[in-house]
Amino acid sequence: MSEFRHRYGRWAVIAGASEGIGARYARAMAERGLDLVLLARRRDALERLAAEIRAETGVEVRVLVADLAEPEAVPDIVAVTAGLEVGMLLYCAGADPEYAPLLAGPVEPTLALVQRNCVTPLRLCHHFAGAMAERGRGGIVVLTSVAGLYGAPNMVAYSATKAFDLVLAEALWAELRPRGVDVLALVLGTTDTPALRRALVRRGALDPSDPAPLPGAATADEVVAEAIENLPNGPTWFVGDGLREFARRLGLRTRGKAVATLARHSDAAGTR
Amino acid sequence: MSEFRHRYGRWAVIAGASEGIGARYARAMAERGLDLVLLARRRDALERLAAEIRAETGVEVRVLVADLAEPEAVPDIVAVTAGLEVGMLLYCAGADPEYAPLLAGPVEPTLALVQRNCVTPLRLCHHFAGAMAERGRGGIVVLTSVAGLYGAPNMVAYSATKAFDLVLAEALWAELRPRGVDVLALVLGTTDTPALRRALVRRGALDPSDPAPLPGAATADEVVAEAIENLPNGPTWFVGDGLREFARRLGLRTRGKAVATLARHSDAAGTR
Repeated sequence: MSEFRHRYGRWAVIAGASEGIGARYARAMAERGLDLVLLARRRDALERLAAEIRAETGVEVRVLVADLAEPEAVPDIVAVTAGLEVGMLLYCAGADPEYAPLLAGPVEPTLALVQRNCVTPLRLCHHFAGAMAERGRGGIVVLTSVAGLYGAPNMVAYSATKAFDLVLAEALWAELRPRGVDVLALVLGTTDTPALRRALVRRGALDPSDPAPLPGAATADEVVAEAIENLPNGPTWFVGDGLREFARRLGLRTRGKAVATLARHSDAAGTR
Repeated sequence: MSEFRHRYGRWAVIAGASEGIGARYARAMAERGLDLVLLARRRDALERLAAEIRAETGVEVRVLVADLAEPEAVPDIVAVTAGLEVGMLLYCAGADPEYAPLLAGPVEPTLALVQRNCVTPLRLCHHFAGAMAERGRGGIVVLTSVAGLYGAPNMVAYSATKAFDLVLAEALWAELRPRGVDVLALVLGTTDTPALRRALVRRGALDPSDPAPLPGAATADEVVAEAIENLPNGPTWFVGDGLREFARRLGLRTRGKAVATLARHSDAAGTR
């Protein structure tokens, strides 16, 4: 049994596993000997990834098609993992589907965001952390964003949900670390993922056929490598030197000055 | 017409108005000439407050019995305010009903907290802010807490919801300030309210018949006075010199060190 599997437990549950950071995380967990439960909306992408990982690593992989913005997702996940020793919960869902003022659209998409980014991870953490704490081992990683540090325009609901995730994971760390469970709030800056590329294409800021890396963006490989290396170094890990420096500089200001700075950046981005 | 009413609009909607900061805010808005819509769960307390305010100030006061943790509250509020020029939304609900590890109880109370502290204020902000922005005037105050700045044990869900509120209000400020609407994230420290007193009594930390002010706690009067004076000074206002100094000092640390500090304080409190 691998050292990693011994430390954390047999199964990893990965929410938002079909692409981007979730998919990369799935491969990395399989390479470390964990069996996988992969959750996402698109069956094709999940089945393809599961088949590749089984062939490459020999680990057991189960998939569940689940919309994490739907309340029914949680009982489905509970059912499909019943009896499994889940040692790792990686909540990678949660990209921002829009970039627009709150009042530019109806409220419903923001409520789906709260369900997917707040309610579902809270329920899954509560469900899986109990058994981890009883076993005295386990790991929980919740992806959050620099957007959750301070409010910023054009992502009112998104940044609020990411603030929730950040503080949720930090608070869980304080409760679970004495019980042998590593919890990490993984704070991402700009990351070159399919979700970001789709968002940029929608905004007309990227040619969909452009294969070049996004300038200034971390890759999913880099994010997952830092996340795994620093899983014991919670509660909070900012990914990348650039983001760490950006957050440090913002932290020297009052919250009001930080918000005003982000608003000016956003205005400039909006008029480019 | 009072200057305040001219600046913000005729009606103030106050969520969580039956006691504490909400009740104090209701009186303060009435003293400034605003008509009121008071929301809370307890009809008796609401009707009593409404009668007192009508007698003392002559403003119009409507009450709605609403459980802000229930999704039905929002359409009820929308209905009772239909046709009113709501110039002020004060979201004062949201005290922490528990002080316990997340895993010490079922998940359902934490989901009610997400509904009351995240979903309902998001929906109300979306609903009322549109008309305010069209009129070019209005005010929104969302009560949040020092607990929302960093994760802390024994209030996992509460601190996550308060982080949501903090960043929600800051982001709204960035979007609405250019449109003439003042938004304020009002960050509270320990405040001497009936909700806190009940919580302390439940924990055995306070004699229910003890009338003395809680040491080190701000009063609802002080909170509301600072909130009104600083409504144009958003996005974020920390109430009281002590809290401002506490937050400033925590801000000098990394988030991880801040969380660890809060966890140590909590451990010490738990073993007293």
